[in-house]
Amino acid sequence: MKRVLVEQLKNHIDEEVLIKGWVARIRKLKSVTFLIIRDRTGLVQCIATNEFMEARSIKLETVVSIIGSVVEGNNSYNPFEVQIKSMEILSQVTEELPIEINKKDLEVNLDVMLNNRVLSLRHEKKNAIFKVQNIIVEAFREFLKGEGFTEIFTPKIVAEGAEGGSEVFLVKYFEENAYLAQSPQFYKQMMVGAGFERVFEIGHAYRAEEHNTNRHLNEYVSMDLEMGFIDGFEDIMDIEEKFIKHMLLSLDERGAKYIELLGASLPVIENKIPKIKFNDAINILNTMYKKTLSGDLDPEGERLICSYVKEKYNSDFVFITHYPREKRPMYTMPSGEEETKSFDLLFRGIEITTGGQRIHDYNMLINNMLYKGLNPNNYEYYLNTFKYGIPPHGGLAIGLERLTAMILGLSNVRETSLFPRDRTRLQP
Amino acid sequence: MKRVLVEQLKNHIDEEVLIKGWVARIRKLKSVTFLIIRDRTGLVQCIATNEFMEARSIKLETVVSIIGSVVEGNNSYNPFEVQIKSMEILSQVTEELPIEINKKDLEVNLDVMLNNRVLSLRHEKKNAIFKVQNIIVEAFREFLKGEGFTEIFTPKIVAEGAEGGSEVFLVKYFEENAYLAQSPQFYKQMMVGAGFERVFEIGHAYRAEEHNTNRHLNEYVSMDLEMGFIDGFEDIMDIEEKFIKHMLLSLDERGAKYIELLGASLPVIENKIPKIKFNDAINILNTMYKKTLSGDLDPEGERLICSYVKEKYNSDFVFITHYPREKRPMYTMPSGEEETKSFDLLFRGIEITTGGQRIHDYNMLINNMLYKGLNPNNYEYYLNTFKYGIPPHGGLAIGLERLTAMILGLSNVRETSLFPRDRTRLQP
Repeated sequence: MKRVLVEQLKNHIDEEVLIKGWVARIRKLKSVTFLIIRDRTGLVQCIATNEFMEARSIKLETVVSIIGSVVEGNNSYNPFEVQIKSMEILSQVTEELPIEINKKDLEVNLDVMLNNRVLSLRHEKKNAIFKVQNIIVEAFREFLKGEGFTEIFTPKIVAEGAEGGSEVFLVKYFEENAYLAQSPQFYKQMMVGAGFERVFEIGHAYRAEEHNTNRHLNEYVSMDLEMGFIDGFEDIMDIEEKFIKHMLLSLDERGAKYIELLGASLPVIENKIPKIKFNDAINILNTMYKKTLSGDLDPEGERLICSYVKEKYNSDFVFITHYPREKRPMYTMPSGEEETKSFDLLFRGIEITTGGQRIHDYNMLINNMLYKGLNPNNYEYYLNTFKYGIPPHGGLAIGLERLTAMILGLSNVRETSLFPRDRTRLQP
Repeated sequence: MKRVLVEQLKNHIDEEVLIKGWVARIRKLKSVTFLIIRDRTGLVQCIATNEFMEARSIKLETVVSIIGSVVEGNNSYNPFEVQIKSMEILSQVTEELPIEINKKDLEVNLDVMLNNRVLSLRHEKKNAIFKVQNIIVEAFREFLKGEGFTEIFTPKIVAEGAEGGSEVFLVKYFEENAYLAQSPQFYKQMMVGAGFERVFEIGHAYRAEEHNTNRHLNEYVSMDLEMGFIDGFEDIMDIEEKFIKHMLLSLDERGAKYIELLGASLPVIENKIPKIKFNDAINILNTMYKKTLSGDLDPEGERLICSYVKEKYNSDFVFITHYPREKRPMYTMPSGEEETKSFDLLFRGIEITTGGQRIHDYNMLINNMLYKGLNPNNYEYYLNTFKYGIPPHGGLAIGLERLTAMILGLSNVRETSLFPRDRTRLQP
């Protein structure tokens, strides 16, 4: 007998079926017991006599296989239920459940939730987060494929960090010291130069940042793209805007029930996403909010600029452009002496993307490395890329977990990673 | 003016167009020069007067932007060519090319090819390898999504290796020692238990193997799947067989020109893939080939069994089943005292998949860890998975680079990794 998934039961009314799943709820009445069975597609109410149930040791979360008849019947799950004829235990619960997962909300703190990840993910609302995340990933991939991008897989064990700074994890690579890649930056640029022109990667990136905030992970999924033959860094903002619109459409079409379940609301982009120059943003913060910043936006600055933009342009998104040269990595294309052809995309108060045009001229890149205090000899293979013809290009990176969290209005990015890694968490 | 890609030029005959790309070939005749321009979609012949060319410093692989008219004209690339009106250099070649890439075959050794990866990938035949690899990845993903699988991203920084042994890379994770994941084994099993039932991951796996063979990489892309509610490990072989058939169909439909360019031929699966028990394979090797093995198949044994199967069943594939318990990891479901419910898939003489049913009973798993000499205390989080109901399950892993190499008949798996990592190679 072939298993029928819960979501397919509606096509089997008055038939005998085999269903399999976890016991999500048990409700014993005077003479009958209701069992709510959960599989990956949904919940269904099953019914047996108390006598039948008492002969079996069924607990919450026991995994069972049931043969029964699908009959019409109103309950809070479906307009039908399953009358149990026989039941087999596939896997028993051998210890008391450490968290209660059959309630409307999972009322445990973050650490307990993550320590019991296998159980907490069975909760509809925790599960829904990753349904939404999957739609985002699919949207990124399908949009870029439609735009002529090729998916690539690049090394995460590298000889040199791409983003500078000391925030790299050390790997013992046989006799050598190596590092975990902070980003696929060098490799995606090399792939543009290798004639692929337009590439993307959805893969892990690593930052050995000491601080433990609710918006950083030490291992995260980076959605990266890089494209050649651009006319300017506006092309990169354009493609991001198109992706965001495509993603929102996908979320609306395929994810509305999860968004609703999680009490979130999708942002709307009515017109173009506003663009504000970095220096103007600093001035706005100073004039409107009496906040003095230089060099970079801090988290409060990002929040304030976003509320300014929300009020003035009714937009949840804003591109901040032309970041100072001293704050951007050596590969960033300068714009004059002080600025760069770069941008961040802020969304609902937080940066979700860094991007921009890259230097494609060999000598300019050498000079910019020296300006940054870097030794070009450490970047031999990367630098070779710029000797043999590479088109003007640029790209961006979006942190998947952070984007998911911001769309769903979740305050901690750990909620959107199946098994997060942070300053103190290395397990499960 | 909007750029037109080479593959679209056929729709612009007698029009003026903007094209951009690399100069792939230069042929100077008496009064005119032919420039072959390459973009990510193909090659096109362009023509200019020698006078026009002499005013410009165009070298092989210079990146240019050309405005010209598309006119009918027979040449070895297309039934049309582009008469150049104006040309701009977007990026100049500043050093002599270290390898010659405008020939039919790239005649350099593997190390030189990999050291000059950005250039070698511009060669049509090197590029085609990754076109084929992309089709394989897409086929895996689309097939599994169609079968109800969810894509997951699991940590690569882990506290404990899943496959046992000492072949793990050490990562300094703040104050702790951590490792690079040898496989997503624990996590994909946990995700089955978390109610996702069917999951897959396409991500990096790491093996710190000292040997440097032509079929191993120290960092590779593993295509993993895991599925719950199986009736036996035959279900896992069934789903792999279905995937392989789907992949071959995709390669034929979307990749025929690359397969042909590379002089490869796709295998055909006429009937079911044959299955041979491990012990029977050992006996066949002994009887037919006078080869004495015990415990495991060595590379020669795999080759011989494959030629036996090819001759007897006309199949390029064979499942070897029921590997000895002592040779399989602790999570493998035993079958009697000596054997396991596990399999390898061999293809054209080499193992491309390891898979099988996993233990889902907590006590059996503890006992198997002890049998393997492992300390259950080191696997606390993983073991918790088996206390709260987890269905019978199994899965498999396919090495992407090796599968690509075997399909294309390439003798070295490094050819099928953009930037391979091996015993001595950490760059580019």
